[in-house]
Amino acid sequence: MFYLVIDILGTIAFAISGVLVAMEKKLDLFGVLIIAFVTAIGGGTLRDFLIGNTPVGWMTTPVYLITITATVIATILFVKQLRYFRKSLFLFDTIGIGLYTMVGVEKGLIAGLSPVMCIILGTITASFGGVIRDILCNEIPVLFRREVYATICILGGVIYFVLIQFPLDPTYAYVTAIVSIILMRLLAVRFKISLPNIYRD
Amino acid sequence: MFYLVIDILGTIAFAISGVLVAMEKKLDLFGVLIIAFVTAIGGGTLRDFLIGNTPVGWMTTPVYLITITATVIATILFVKQLRYFRKSLFLFDTIGIGLYTMVGVEKGLIAGLSPVMCIILGTITASFGGVIRDILCNEIPVLFRREVYATICILGGVIYFVLIQFPLDPTYAYVTAIVSIILMRLLAVRFKISLPNIYRD
Amino acid sequence: MFYLVIDILGTIAFAISGVLVAMEKKLDLFGVLIIAFVTAIGGGTLRDFLIGNTPVGWMTTPVYLITITATVIATILFVKQLRYFRKSLFLFDTIGIGLYTMVGVEKGLIAGLSPVMCIILGTITASFGGVIRDILCNEIPVLFRREVYATICILGGVIYFVLIQFPLDPTYAYVTAIVSIILMRLLAVRFKISLPNIYRD
Repeated sequence: MFYLVIDILGTIAFAISGVLVAMEKKLDLFGVLIIAFVTAIGGGTLRDFLIGNTPVGWMTTPVYLITITATVIATILFVKQLRYFRKSLFLFDTIGIGLYTMVGVEKGLIAGLSPVMCIILGTITASFGGVIRDILCNEIPVLFRREVYATICILGGVIYFVLIQFPLDPTYAYVTAIVSIILMRLLAVRFKISLPNIYRD
Repeated sequence: MFYLVIDILGTIAFAISGVLVAMEKKLDLFGVLIIAFVTAIGGGTLRDFLIGNTPVGWMTTPVYLITITATVIATILFVKQLRYFRKSLFLFDTIGIGLYTMVGVEKGLIAGLSPVMCIILGTITASFGGVIRDILCNEIPVLFRREVYATICILGGVIYFVLIQFPLDPTYAYVTAIVSIILMRLLAVRFKISLPNIYRD
Repeated sequence: MFYLVIDILGTIAFAISGVLVAMEKKLDLFGVLIIAFVTAIGGGTLRDFLIGNTPVGWMTTPVYLITITATVIATILFVKQLRYFRKSLFLFDTIGIGLYTMVGVEKGLIAGLSPVMCIILGTITASFGGVIRDILCNEIPVLFRREVYATICILGGVIYFVLIQFPLDPTYAYVTAIVSIILMRLLAVRFKISLPNIYRD
């Protein structure tokens, strides 16, 4: 139940980010729906392909489809309230990344993968939807711009695997990791933290 | 047998549309073959991934490969007869979409999916090959241009599920849905029907 | 053991080619790592999806991940020694293609596919990583430039299936096919051999 709620919240956040990018590109109603859909389920679909979890999650449970459709309608209606487009996009993208990283880690554990592979699976789950969104909308993927994007997903995963070594309810570790990822990303952008330069310009 | 024939006809239609796009881009012989191949099997491959039907269909039955190769050769030889490039492309793309939508719906039913998911699976089957074709050829995917494209696949799927409620041979429902999709798309383009505008320009 | 060594060598060659393309695009450290990773495992991942071999190979065996990370670090440190960028890229790409084509053929045989499908699977294994690398780095895929690229993978596969008809150790056929692919590609580029023109300019 708890994990489903996290998954749904991530779906909502990514669907909103998809609508925002698609509307900035002036796509028509169906285009917006497709981009929202692809952004929200892209990462989870690749994750399910990688671990052989088929039919993929969103095909057997109608809740994802309903959530995305409702989110798209609500976002289109209230888009005026999300005045600062770029900022809203960044915020929802960040929330989605935090939530989906840990959803992916959880699914990796269920599939019996090692912690390192779980973290990679979480990072892929979190980032792939946004990459497809950007490719389809003909933007350079956010992932490849000079941000410490994916690095932060990995750090979040590490925090989770460190915390579950302690005798705590694993739910705390899970939530702490999500919050850490969101905070780290906000701070990294706020303070313009980036990875070390490998070029001598 | 009937379903295989529909599948092969869709393969031929999409292979032709792939050759036409690739030749307009002046790709070499192998490039044309690859684009034709990807256009014809792209949608079905993603469909098989989504429902976990592996090895994917075209790898275990040689008929698709033979069909595509023969279609490519024939199309290259007779391309002069298809004088109006854009128009031919649109026609074969439309026929392919009509046929593949219902092939996807059928496979969804076999995989035990709900009608809504079958329709989505059909739409993905029909549209993904063309999207990859356009991305590889560096065109904006037809799917995202202002047409009621995918909406029509969904309508076709709805028509099918309404018709099979009646005490008829399901083959009639199947063929009626295919013909409806093709006609609706031709009419939509002829009369420039499009989705309601969600922007206040 | 022998097949694993070939697979690792292909992984190293493709990881280097990924680093070279990514560094030419001035991506940051993580971007370089991702491109190297995607180039090295992209083809094998699609191959595993197609034959339903999940969880995919690199998720269950840590050796690929370790190999790629070590290769990326070494390549970044010694990139100055690889002075002629374009030439080095071409060489490592070619070696990777030779090795991965036969890795794919081998996996196809294990999956019980026909020789023709094994050759196609090998070609996909060899070429897909490079195609993703080029798409992500916003280059026109090498595969679609006027080279006899994929044709050579197919020829290499044919050489393999011809040779194993003879009463030899299959390892000889395997190695001969790899060397043939590498040599044919080098010769094709050196002597500017290309496919017959299908256009009357």
